[in-house]
Amino acid sequence: MLALAIKQVPYESHPVSFSAGEHKKPEFLALNPRHKVPVIQDGAFTLYESVAILAYLDRKYPEPALFGRSPEETGVIWRWALEFTHYLEPVLQDKIVSPIFFGKSAEKADSIRQAVPELHAELTRWEQALAHSPWLVGERISAADVTLFPSLMALRRAAQKPAAQPLELGVEPFSEKYPNLSRWAARIEALPGYDQTYPPHWRE
Amino acid sequence: MLALAIKQVPYESHPVSFSAGEHKKPEFLALNPRHKVPVIQDGAFTLYESVAILAYLDRKYPEPALFGRSPEETGVIWRWALEFTHYLEPVLQDKIVSPIFFGKSAEKADSIRQAVPELHAELTRWEQALAHSPWLVGERISAADVTLFPSLMALRRAAQKPAAQPLELGVEPFSEKYPNLSRWAARIEALPGYDQTYPPHWRE
Repeated sequence: MLALAIKQVPYESHPVSFSAGEHKKPEFLALNPRHKVPVIQDGAFTLYESVAILAYLDRKYPEPALFGRSPEETGVIWRWALEFTHYLEPVLQDKIVSPIFFGKSAEKADSIRQAVPELHAELTRWEQALAHSPWLVGERISAADVTLFPSLMALRRAAQKPAAQPLELGVEPFSEKYPNLSRWAARIEALPGYDQTYPPHWRE
Repeated sequence: MLALAIKQVPYESHPVSFSAGEHKKPEFLALNPRHKVPVIQDGAFTLYESVAILAYLDRKYPEPALFGRSPEETGVIWRWALEFTHYLEPVLQDKIVSPIFFGKSAEKADSIRQAVPELHAELTRWEQALAHSPWLVGERISAADVTLFPSLMALRRAAQKPAAQPLELGVEPFSEKYPNLSRWAARIEALPGYDQTYPPHWRE
C-alpha cells in the first residue's frame, strides 16, 4: 500500500482477519496457498509475496522508480531488501513481534529476551545507513525503505503493549534509541497517501 | 555464475574456503560483512546477497532477461525467488544440507529427519510447476530457475554422502522421485558455459 501511495496508483484495501480465520478460507487460499498477506489483485492478475508485489508494481507503474535508476542502485536496493528478509525479519517478526501480537509474550518470554541483542545489532545497521542520507539508498525513497517501514511500525506497536513491558525490548523511547530511523519514519508518515496505508484496526 | 553464463558475460571465479576461515578474514569482510558467498566485483562496484546480484546483473547486462519481459512475468519470477528464500531454503539449506556438509549429520540426525517431510512438501511444489513447462516461469530460463538450481545440486550432493545414508532423506534416485526437476536440471547442465559454474572442489 505504501508503494501504491508513492506511485499515486488508486487502490482498495481489504483487511484479512487472522483471528477470524479468514486467511485459511478457500476463497483466500485460492489467492495465496501460503495463507499470508499481502496479496494483490490487479485486473485478472493475482500475486502474493510482498517484495515480489513491489517488483511487479515497479514494472507496471514505473514512476517514481522504487528499484533504482542504475544497475548499481538496483543491486544495493535489492541487497537491503534481502538483508531485511534474511536477517532482520526473522528476529524482528518471527521471534519478537508475532509472539507478542498473538498473546504468547509470557509463554515465550525467554526466547523473546534472547532475541533482543540480535534485534538491536540488526537495527543498528539500518540506523547507521541513515546517518548521512535521508533514505536507505540514493536520494529518493526506494523499495529498501518500503520493505523495512511496516515491520518497524509493527515492532514499535508491539513494544508499546502492556504485555511487552516485562520483556525489556529496549525499543522505546524510539526517537532516543534510534534517532535516524525515527526521523526517517516521520518522513514516510508525511508522504501523500500515507494515512490510507495505516492499518484501520490499529486506530481502534 | 550461472546467470553470467546465460548472459555470456566473461568472469573469473574465486572460491572462498570456509574450512580455511577465508570468509572471516578482514579482506573478505571488507567485501561482505555478513561473511557469506557469493560476492561480485564488477569494476569498482561490489555487491553481496545472491539474488540482489542477479537483479544487478539483469539491469547491467539486460539480455537475455532473467526477470521477465512483462510486469506479470516479473512478479511471478520474484514470487518464486522469494518463496525459495522464505520456505525452501530454510529447510533445504539450514536444516539439512549445512549440517551434512559441516559433519554434523550424526549429531543433528533427529532435527534433520524431522525436516524431511517439509523438504518434500516444498520440492513437490516446484516439481508440479514443471509438469507442463520446461522452465518455472514462461518459455525461457529465468531468475526463478537460477535461484533454485544450486541449492538443489547441493541437496543431491549431500544426499549422496555416506554420512547421509542413515538419514533416509528420500531424495535419490532423483530421476524417479522428481522426474520433472530431474529433466529441468539436465536442461540447465546442458547450457553453454555451465561447466565453468561447477564448483571445482566438487570434482575432486
